[in-house]
Amino acid sequence: MNTSIRTAGLETCGWTEHAVASTRNTYPMQTSFFVNTRYRDAPGSPIRELNRFTHLPDMLSLAGGYPDPALMDAQALQRLLVGLPASDFAAALKYGGTEGEELLRLELAKLSATRGLRTMATDILTLSGSQQGIDLLARTVLNEGDTVLVEAPTYPAALSAFRIAGARIHQLPSDQQGLVLDGLEDALIQHRPKLIYIVPTFGNPTGRTLPLERRHALLALAVKYNCLVVEDDPYGELWFDVAPPPAIYSLRDRIRGAEHCCIYLGSLSKIVAPGLRLGWMLGPADVRRACVLAKQTDDMHASTLTQVAAAHYLRQELLALQLPRLRAVYGARAKSLACVLREHLGDSIAFDEPAGGLFLWARVRGVDTSHWLHNAIRHQVMFVPGNAFFAHPTDPCTLRLSFAGLHEEQLLQAGKRLARSLSSAEPV
Amino acid sequence: MNTSIRTAGLETCGWTEHAVASTRNTYPMQTSFFVNTRYRDAPGSPIRELNRFTHLPDMLSLAGGYPDPALMDAQALQRLLVGLPASDFAAALKYGGTEGEELLRLELAKLSATRGLRTMATDILTLSGSQQGIDLLARTVLNEGDTVLVEAPTYPAALSAFRIAGARIHQLPSDQQGLVLDGLEDALIQHRPKLIYIVPTFGNPTGRTLPLERRHALLALAVKYNCLVVEDDPYGELWFDVAPPPAIYSLRDRIRGAEHCCIYLGSLSKIVAPGLRLGWMLGPADVRRACVLAKQTDDMHASTLTQVAAAHYLRQELLALQLPRLRAVYGARAKSLACVLREHLGDSIAFDEPAGGLFLWARVRGVDTSHWLHNAIRHQVMFVPGNAFFAHPTDPCTLRLSFAGLHEEQLLQAGKRLARSLSSAEPV
Repeated sequence: MNTSIRTAGLETCGWTEHAVASTRNTYPMQTSFFVNTRYRDAPGSPIRELNRFTHLPDMLSLAGGYPDPALMDAQALQRLLVGLPASDFAAALKYGGTEGEELLRLELAKLSATRGLRTMATDILTLSGSQQGIDLLARTVLNEGDTVLVEAPTYPAALSAFRIAGARIHQLPSDQQGLVLDGLEDALIQHRPKLIYIVPTFGNPTGRTLPLERRHALLALAVKYNCLVVEDDPYGELWFDVAPPPAIYSLRDRIRGAEHCCIYLGSLSKIVAPGLRLGWMLGPADVRRACVLAKQTDDMHASTLTQVAAAHYLRQELLALQLPRLRAVYGARAKSLACVLREHLGDSIAFDEPAGGLFLWARVRGVDTSHWLHNAIRHQVMFVPGNAFFAHPTDPCTLRLSFAGLHEEQLLQAGKRLARSLSSAEPV
Repeated sequence: MNTSIRTAGLETCGWTEHAVASTRNTYPMQTSFFVNTRYRDAPGSPIRELNRFTHLPDMLSLAGGYPDPALMDAQALQRLLVGLPASDFAAALKYGGTEGEELLRLELAKLSATRGLRTMATDILTLSGSQQGIDLLARTVLNEGDTVLVEAPTYPAALSAFRIAGARIHQLPSDQQGLVLDGLEDALIQHRPKLIYIVPTFGNPTGRTLPLERRHALLALAVKYNCLVVEDDPYGELWFDVAPPPAIYSLRDRIRGAEHCCIYLGSLSKIVAPGLRLGWMLGPADVRRACVLAKQTDDMHASTLTQVAAAHYLRQELLALQLPRLRAVYGARAKSLACVLREHLGDSIAFDEPAGGLFLWARVRGVDTSHWLHNAIRHQVMFVPGNAFFAHPTDPCTLRLSFAGLHEEQLLQAGKRLARSLSSAEPV
C-alpha cells in the first residue's frame, strides 16, 4: 500500500487526525545512522497501519484478519490452567527446547493428521505463530538476489519477510481456483526461484482454494526444478460446508523427491487463540535444523506456558468441540456479507462467495479502492485496499473484506455504509 | 566450542552414547540444497548441545545458565491467572500490538526505574525474551561486513546472532572489573565498529561488573565514534550484598549525543520465569522502530497471555517480595560453590567470588577444560568449557560454573566430583 492511503486526505478531517495522533506509537521520521539499509526505508505493515482507525467510535471494520475474540474458548482455557496440578504449572514456567514441548508436539502431530498430514511428533518444529515460520525460512533459505514466486494477490507480511531477506519477488496470476499453473513452468525455468510461497486453502486475501489436481501439478513442477514449496495453512480447518482438499504437503509421498521440497506451516491463531502465539512447521530435516538454529538466537522457544495450555486444550479434545461452532458462525457471516454486498452494491461489485476462511475478495468497477477507503472511513466502515496484497501493484479496484469479526446485524450496517461511501467516491 | 567436545571420547562409554541417541533431535548431517550459506554450516548452541547430558541419572550440572525452577513464584502466577476476571482472561487471548500490552509496558517502565532507568511506557518495546532483542538488533543494525566489538569472554548466542548477520567480531580483553577500556579508543578508530555488545552487570559468563567510571568512559567513547552500545542486563537485579552501579543506559542524559547511541535489554527470565519468554528494549526511537518492523514479520508480538500474567505479577508487587529471596539463595549458593572449590580444588583453580548473577568464571592450571569435561561427565558433574564464550578461542584453561540450580549439599558433592575428575584429567 502506498503512503497516500495512510495520510492523503485524512489530515483534513479533524477526528481522524486526532485519532491518528493519539493511538500511534511515535517514531521520528528522520533517517537513522544506525539502522541498516534493509530496514531504514522499510514500510510498516499496511494492515497494522489501519488498526488505528478500527477503534474509532462506531467503526465497523472489515479490514482485520483476526478471528472473533468472542468465539475463542476462553472459559475452557482458563479452567484448564486453573486445574493444572501445581507441579505441571511450575514446569510450564521453565526454559524448554527450541523444537517445543513434547506434549504439544504430540498433539500437533494428531491435529496435522486431520489435514491429511502424517508426521511424527519429533519432526514438528513448534513456532511462536506460523508467521515466524515464514520469517525463519526467509532467513535460512534465501540469499540476497534469490527469486521467490508468489501467487498474486498474497499475504503482505510474507512479502515483507522475503523483501527484507533481499529476495526478488515474481508474482504469478491466480483465478477463482487459486494459483494459475499455465505460466509456472516458464517462470521456474526463467527465474530459477528458490521457493514458492502459497496459501492454497481459503487463502489470504482471496479466500480461494487450490484444487487437488493443481496441488499435485504444482508440487511435481517444483520438484522438477528444485524449488521449495512453502504452504501456509492457517485457515484449512475453517471450512463452511465441505472440507478442502488435503494439504500439498500430504502429497509428498506420491511424487519422487518431493519429501525434500515442501514445507507446511500450521497455526493455532485462527482456531484456538492468536494471543498464545503458536504455530508449527513440518518439512525436511535439514531445513528444520536451520530454522531451529535461527530460532535459538531469536526467541529460543515459544512460551512454555502457552505451549502447555494449548497441549492440554488439544489433548482434552476441546478444539474438536469448538471447530463445528467456528465453521457455522464464520460460514453464516460469509453468507451474510455476500448477501448484503449483492443487495446494496449490486452490479458495482464482483466477488465469489468464500467456502471457508475469514476473507472475501472483491473488485469494484472504476473505483480506486485506496481513494474509496478514505471516504469509507468517514462513513465509519473499513476494508483493506487490494494493492496491499500485491508485490507489484496490479489492480487498484480490488479490496479484501473480512466478515470474521462482525455479527450479521453489523454486517448489514457495514454493507449499507459501503454502498453509501462508494456512491460518493470518485471514479478512477 | 569445537565439535570434539560433543563427540570425541564419549562414544566409548555406553551409557552416554545411549543418552545422546535417545534425547537428540535427529537431523541428517547431509548438505542441504535449500539452506543458505549462512545457516548451512552454522554450529548449534554449544551450551544447548550439552543439555542432553544434564538429564543423565545423578548428574550434577553446573553447565546451565538457568534460574532454579524451584525459586520461581509458580503458585502466585497460577493464583493470579485463576483470579483473572473472565473478560480479562479472554482479552489476553487476542492479537496485540507489536510493542506489547500497555499494562505490561507500564510495569516494565516502573521496573526499569529500579535500575536507574527513567522511561515512558510508550518507549518500551516488549520482547519475547531479551535474547530476541539481540537478534532484532543484529538484523536491523548490521550490514554484511560491519564490525561488532565484544568483551572477551561473552554470551555465545550474541556471537551467533552477530555472525549470522555477517558481522566481523573484534573482541576486547576484560579483567576482574569487566571490559578493559585501554585499547577501546584504538579499536574504535581502527575497526569503526557499528556496535559494542556488553553484559556489564554480573556478566555472562564471568559474573563481573563494570564500575561506574568505566561505564561512563565507555559510553563517552562510543558516542565520540558513533558506535551503538548494546547493554544486555538479565542479571542486574540479582545482587547479593550490594546493588550494582546504575545501568549504562541511565548515563545517557549526562553525555551529549548519548541518547542516540545506547540500547538497554531487560529480561524477566531470571527474576520471574523464563517460560513466559518476556524481555524489553529501551533505545532511540529510530532503532526501536526498525526492531518493531522486524518483529512484525517474525512473531508479531510476545504472547498476550504471558504479557498479561507478568503485568499483573509486577503490578501486585509480587516481584518485590520475591527478589530478596532470590538474592539470598543465589548469594548463599555462590558462597558455597566458592568455598567448595577452594577446599577441594585448592591451588589448581583460580576465580573471584561473584557478587551477583548466576555464574562463576574460573581458570585451572595446565588443563584444557574441553578435555576435562569428558572426564567430568564420567564423574557425573558438568560445566561449560570457557572457549564457548570467545569469538576467537583464547584460553583453553577457562570454564564457567553456574551455582544457580544446585542446593548447597549438591554443590559440595559437585565440588568433590570436579576435584576427582580434574585429578585424573590429562594436562594440556
